[in-house]
Amino acid sequence: MEGVANLIATYEIDQQRLWQTLMELGEIGSTPGKPEEGVTRISLSLEDLKARKYTIDVMKEAGLKVRVDAIGNIIGRLEGTDSSAPVVMTGSHIDTVIRGGKFDGALGVLGAIEAVRTIQEAGIELVHPIEVVSFTDEEGVRFGSGYFGSKAMVGGVNKEMFGFTDETGITLADALKKAELNPNEYMSVVRNPEEIKAYVEMHIEQGKVLEDQQLAVGIVTDIQGPVWMEVEFEGNPDHAGATPMNMRNDAGLSMAELMLEVEKISINNQGVGTVGKASLEPGAVNIIPGNALLTIDLRHVDKRYRSNMVKEVKQAILNICRKRKMKANIEVKKEVDPATCSEEIIEVIQQSCKELHVPTMKMQCGAGHDSLMMTKVTKMGMIFVRSKGGVSHNPKEWTDKEDCAIGTQVLLNTLMKLAK
Amino acid sequence: MEGVANLIATYEIDQQRLWQTLMELGEIGSTPGKPEEGVTRISLSLEDLKARKYTIDVMKEAGLKVRVDAIGNIIGRLEGTDSSAPVVMTGSHIDTVIRGGKFDGALGVLGAIEAVRTIQEAGIELVHPIEVVSFTDEEGVRFGSGYFGSKAMVGGVNKEMFGFTDETGITLADALKKAELNPNEYMSVVRNPEEIKAYVEMHIEQGKVLEDQQLAVGIVTDIQGPVWMEVEFEGNPDHAGATPMNMRNDAGLSMAELMLEVEKISINNQGVGTVGKASLEPGAVNIIPGNALLTIDLRHVDKRYRSNMVKEVKQAILNICRKRKMKANIEVKKEVDPATCSEEIIEVIQQSCKELHVPTMKMQCGAGHDSLMMTKVTKMGMIFVRSKGGVSHNPKEWTDKEDCAIGTQVLLNTLMKLAK
Repeated sequence: MEGVANLIATYEIDQQRLWQTLMELGEIGSTPGKPEEGVTRISLSLEDLKARKYTIDVMKEAGLKVRVDAIGNIIGRLEGTDSSAPVVMTGSHIDTVIRGGKFDGALGVLGAIEAVRTIQEAGIELVHPIEVVSFTDEEGVRFGSGYFGSKAMVGGVNKEMFGFTDETGITLADALKKAELNPNEYMSVVRNPEEIKAYVEMHIEQGKVLEDQQLAVGIVTDIQGPVWMEVEFEGNPDHAGATPMNMRNDAGLSMAELMLEVEKISINNQGVGTVGKASLEPGAVNIIPGNALLTIDLRHVDKRYRSNMVKEVKQAILNICRKRKMKANIEVKKEVDPATCSEEIIEVIQQSCKELHVPTMKMQCGAGHDSLMMTKVTKMGMIFVRSKGGVSHNPKEWTDKEDCAIGTQVLLNTLMKLAK
Repeated sequence: MEGVANLIATYEIDQQRLWQTLMELGEIGSTPGKPEEGVTRISLSLEDLKARKYTIDVMKEAGLKVRVDAIGNIIGRLEGTDSSAPVVMTGSHIDTVIRGGKFDGALGVLGAIEAVRTIQEAGIELVHPIEVVSFTDEEGVRFGSGYFGSKAMVGGVNKEMFGFTDETGITLADALKKAELNPNEYMSVVRNPEEIKAYVEMHIEQGKVLEDQQLAVGIVTDIQGPVWMEVEFEGNPDHAGATPMNMRNDAGLSMAELMLEVEKISINNQGVGTVGKASLEPGAVNIIPGNALLTIDLRHVDKRYRSNMVKEVKQAILNICRKRKMKANIEVKKEVDPATCSEEIIEVIQQSCKELHVPTMKMQCGAGHDSLMMTKVTKMGMIFVRSKGGVSHNPKEWTDKEDCAIGTQVLLNTLMKLAK
């Protein structure tokens, strides 16, 4: 099945209206006539502030009661018949990376607003309140503080983080104050687990699995948590002509072996592993690399497997050092726990797809999202929407209008079931 | 045998005087009190011009008749009893790389002057004139025009090369004119093969073979010619989390495989091969590399083997592209013919070592030198002197005082035999 026309929806979202908000928000932070420059809305920048205003306006138009919490999370609430019942929460973020696209984050926020607007306009009465949240600084580009808004909401933020600075030396605290927010009151942002019934996030896939399977939407079962490592090999920078092969300590060759080992270990453990950055020192065509620096990103939905991957990579480094007479430094730069989606929410999304005649599949999520944080206080689920060519964090990021609508319709049905 | 004291020399060079000139020349282009910054005497820079003046002065003190040719080669001549007899030529260069050392090139020039000074002061009469040459711009750092002076001498320079520019846009022609040279008359520099009987160059090894063998000097049999290639792999830059291992087109892994293939091919062909530069694009920890760029330096003393190495590397690239569904661009950036040293000169150097009781070995030369050019017009030989740790093109480049003396003594005996 392809196309929104075939959806069997009782209450139908407005495809055109959704697309218009996506395109309008996508204008903010882009350069007119230069689509190749993409969208840049770094958190708390002028562009982000404009986008926040736009999002608040759309929420208000949708009939939501809007409040902005102390660190800038925008929360649009549709009241339930029982206003003290735990909230069904949905949302994502509107900040972008440098030269990003129109869909990463934005679809989750604007799609949620469209879904709730449909409920509101249809006059449907639901027991639980629904809150649409646009989280502050998911990307973490400016202050290295990714998932900041959702982290704050689950009590994961501490005072030190407000001292993080951007390239120009401005602290996160100052940037928040400049946006008329109250970083000192960050603890007021924390939500109690009892207040929240569920969190559902719609997001573009950022991969090619759905495209490959010709499916508009997927249901996430697990979110991989990344471990980031930096490895440096230290050999000897000798002359490329004057040093026979058997007298070399070529750090580059150690790096090459490790790169292939990371691939092998990832396949064997059914996880993913990537060497995304690599450099050789001194880096001249006729000098044997004395140093090689590389990054490793290891992910698995199962923490035990991931630990095993890390262990095997470390063992591989040791073996290479022994074989090639190298020294190595290993630094673990980041370690995020994987998360499992709620069986109950998976079931509800699956049912929604079924009643809408939307074919779907269960799949893993490789990227990190605000949902990773929210899982610490509530049951969490994710709806993935097909990404063209799997491209994201790039001006070429694209999701077709119909796919946006299908995802949003699935979100609507899901929210109605969760909030009823 | 170690140490100059044991040399059985009929005419003995002045170790102290040689060392003093090496240290004095080494001051020019270095920063007082900052040995870690090494020596920087880029060709035709102010520092190089100062070094030229110094070299001319030392030549004159040594009793040589000095002339500077149209493109700046400094030629100090000791007349023979038959001034029309073909010249025995020796020398090297005094320009350096950025943050280079005191010995690369300098030892060949100052050692040659010391050797000829010893002959001159002893009043020895030789039939053939001896010319000590300090060649212009061997390193090629500033204009990308390596071996420039020796290339001009063998007729290998063409008009276009004078249009090469440095980083600031100054052409080679203008830099030569500023140094009061006459680039327009570059053809006057060319020497006739009949004019030259032999060319002998003493140079630091720039490798660790002599150190490994505990020898002060070696006799070069062949000079490897490098082939420089640039290879770019083109895959797809996907999300490191969202792209399963079997859906990747990771250009970095192709690069890693090729690096290990270059090693294997070099060992199998008994040549040397190096990947000195490597980079991944876009180069982020969580993005699969879409592009990978690397340089390959392949060397062999036998051109047929080297051609085979190039062929095998190209085949390896094809295989990797097929296996990993990649595109690759291959560019050959440089191709220098290997050179073979004259059997006759090798024999003379060997005899000189023997009579001086200097243990030695025959060895290959991996780096390029002015001798590579000179082999086009005359019989060529090279004396290698031990490099500490094999380090060169680096502030840590070092050759012990005694090793400099032993090499220079061997050069003296060799020149006397060749010129008698």
